[in-house]
Amino acid sequence: MEKTTVSKATLGRLPEYLRVLREDLTEEDGPHISATAIAKKLNLGEVQVRKDLAAVSGAGKPKLGYEARELTEEIERFLGYDRLTPAVLVGAGKLGRALLQYKEFERYGVKIAAAFDLNEQTIVIGDKTEVLPMSLFESFCRNGHIRLGIITVGEGSAQTVCDRMVECGIEAIWNFAPCKLNVPSGILLQNENLALSLAHLNNQLRNRN
Amino acid sequence: MEKTTVSKATLGRLPEYLRVLREDLTEEDGPHISATAIAKKLNLGEVQVRKDLAAVSGAGKPKLGYEARELTEEIERFLGYDRLTPAVLVGAGKLGRALLQYKEFERYGVKIAAAFDLNEQTIVIGDKTEVLPMSLFESFCRNGHIRLGIITVGEGSAQTVCDRMVECGIEAIWNFAPCKLNVPSGILLQNENLALSLAHLNNQLRNRN
Repeated sequence: MEKTTVSKATLGRLPEYLRVLREDLTEEDGPHISATAIAKKLNLGEVQVRKDLAAVSGAGKPKLGYEARELTEEIERFLGYDRLTPAVLVGAGKLGRALLQYKEFERYGVKIAAAFDLNEQTIVIGDKTEVLPMSLFESFCRNGHIRLGIITVGEGSAQTVCDRMVECGIEAIWNFAPCKLNVPSGILLQNENLALSLAHLNNQLRNRN
Repeated sequence: MEKTTVSKATLGRLPEYLRVLREDLTEEDGPHISATAIAKKLNLGEVQVRKDLAAVSGAGKPKLGYEARELTEEIERFLGYDRLTPAVLVGAGKLGRALLQYKEFERYGVKIAAAFDLNEQTIVIGDKTEVLPMSLFESFCRNGHIRLGIITVGEGSAQTVCDRMVECGIEAIWNFAPCKLNVPSGILLQNENLALSLAHLNNQLRNRN
């Protein structure tokens, strides 16, 4: 069941199901849990929960529901907890550093394995996070079989960084630089335009006046 | 024409049109510019450009297109350049500080007027950005008629901050804390889950194996 692409909405609910399975179950609940019970605990629609779980696990047993431990493992596997995808981040400015310390990524199956900066010195942030110089970038990515890259450099260097990522085998790029990047076909590119999100909210707000 | 809610995609292209109007026009282009010419310069579909511009400006003149200066002003007005929406940000950790220095917001009509932190001391970041203590929050928002709030505090304090925002008249909230917030009906709430964006990309990547 692992090779399913689920919607972003489903993906967003999976960690919530995990939390219920790990934290909210008491002795009384027994070894099984039904979609109905999960829906109730999270204040979600039953049909939705059933659909989400079917995508990662299959149907529960009639009258019994899901075996809680099994379901937990299935969701964990789906989210990649058993094998976090290692990613590299390039650009250790404020945003880059914020992402480096963002705890949530691992809950969704990604671990930032290393951070790089165009500045050619090793920088130590806080206690231990190290930012490496770009001269080590290619060898790190190739040796680690890194497939996922995060770009948090400025507009001016983003394309160069992107090209270097593609060059050394990275297949999926998450871009925060406010510009368009050219990638060869076959490379997954996801642009994160924070200003646009805010503009959208502002636009709705202004239309209320 | 100002009270139109346009799609996020259209909103994202408007600053690009502005750039063309401001920077790419030469003497030879004359005082008018056609949707066709703009589309060509940006490598976009003509129909799309025509539709986008119609939403903010109306149709161009047959054979002539748009009066460039007028169109510039219309897009600027639409994006709110003539009256930036003032916003407040609460939570001056790494992410909050990254957003404070993010230049792109003003290009989309929003200006962070002040930043606050639960830490009750005034902090000065860099040269001049000041982070104020929460004790000044209510009076600042009320006096400034602030309607837009950005939450970059942790999960534990997000609901409290959200309640205080609503209490003092904020109508639209952009939430970065990884948790669900309860807001009264009528309040616009937009959750920004960065981990989910990354998870979505990772999910696509893993399905290729």
